[in-house]
Amino acid sequence: MELQLSEALIRRLPAYYRNLKELEQAGVEHISSEALGQRMHQTASLVRWDMKYLGVLGRQGHGYGVRELRTCIGEVLGLNRPHDMIVIGAGSIGNAVTRYPGFSEDGFRVTAMFDTDPARIGGRVNGIPVLDWKDVGEYLKAHPVRIAVLAVPAAAARETAGVLEHFGIRAIWNFAPVDLQYDPRVMDVVNVHLSDTLQVLSYKIAHHAGEWEEA
Amino acid sequence: MELQLSEALIRRLPAYYRNLKELEQAGVEHISSEALGQRMHQTASLVRWDMKYLGVLGRQGHGYGVRELRTCIGEVLGLNRPHDMIVIGAGSIGNAVTRYPGFSEDGFRVTAMFDTDPARIGGRVNGIPVLDWKDVGEYLKAHPVRIAVLAVPAAAARETAGVLEHFGIRAIWNFAPVDLQYDPRVMDVVNVHLSDTLQVLSYKIAHHAGEWEEA
Repeated sequence: MELQLSEALIRRLPAYYRNLKELEQAGVEHISSEALGQRMHQTASLVRWDMKYLGVLGRQGHGYGVRELRTCIGEVLGLNRPHDMIVIGAGSIGNAVTRYPGFSEDGFRVTAMFDTDPARIGGRVNGIPVLDWKDVGEYLKAHPVRIAVLAVPAAAARETAGVLEHFGIRAIWNFAPVDLQYDPRVMDVVNVHLSDTLQVLSYKIAHHAGEWEEA
Repeated sequence: MELQLSEALIRRLPAYYRNLKELEQAGVEHISSEALGQRMHQTASLVRWDMKYLGVLGRQGHGYGVRELRTCIGEVLGLNRPHDMIVIGAGSIGNAVTRYPGFSEDGFRVTAMFDTDPARIGGRVNGIPVLDWKDVGEYLKAHPVRIAVLAVPAAAARETAGVLEHFGIRAIWNFAPVDLQYDPRVMDVVNVHLSDTLQVLSYKIAHHAGEWEEA
């Protein structure tokens, strides 16, 4: 597959995938671009444009096959193959990622966690061992994992990412509240920024709180 | 404050806030729109436009005062006042939100968690009690909390949100992998979708994995 997709379309794909999975589980077999657009808060013509770009054609009067479309988008997203990853930081976020069942459904499997805290090293989270961060290079030599979840404090994030790059990690799912920026030829990075989404909620609350008090 | 900000600008505010906080902690006092734009991967003119919209003016040759700008954006985001919230679901995500120190820095405080699992009810997470979900109405009558973190399985999300709305919750930070949609006059919602960000990383990995194997 050698599609060159725009960053905007790439970011829409997970929402398509999630909605199609929900429709499939609800037993829906076909969906029109209008109905899919409505679910996604997008125009029908954007949906048709995206699908054409992915090489998927709907049938006049039937719309798109839900299962076929879900399968196709899953393949474009690379969800059809298993991915091993290590989790750096065995605190609350590292624990949540390791325990959360939703990621393994997409083929992501945590093989080891790393921490610098002697109280955590040697423990297990959901059966996954917590290893000493200073052994990460040795571990990666023995286990060629290429994906790391970064769940360390902000102050440690950049240095930790540098060490991971040195030892062969090629993709980082970053939960530390800093913007990690890498040349994609060196490292794929997605910065999550949980606090940002909470701050957007805070903004909305701040501009409605007057109404709440009246109620 | 009666600013009407676009959804796009609202979504940029947390990134401004985060970058300005980092600059302030590093002892930087002034920053130009060019330098701030570069940090945020945006043009200097968009930064100037955003700041003008917020009513902030830079000084010729000095740029913006970092502390003043951070304070102003913090106020627009409503981070200058405390917010109580309850967490629904005491699983891995609920635990992470309750334990994570970064949210309390922004004034968000968890007062109680709720679950349906008898094995979890009666316990504590970081000192916060895990209460029986069926008592949530009674709790909200006694404690007028208006914000809930939704950390329940997808299948339970919509019904749980409906119950919360009934008992007076007016804002939901949703971690369940479904798109909750409410009229903002009824409920403010921010959907987080952790899996979406992992799937974006998966896409990037899928389109680089060939190069990894060569290395």
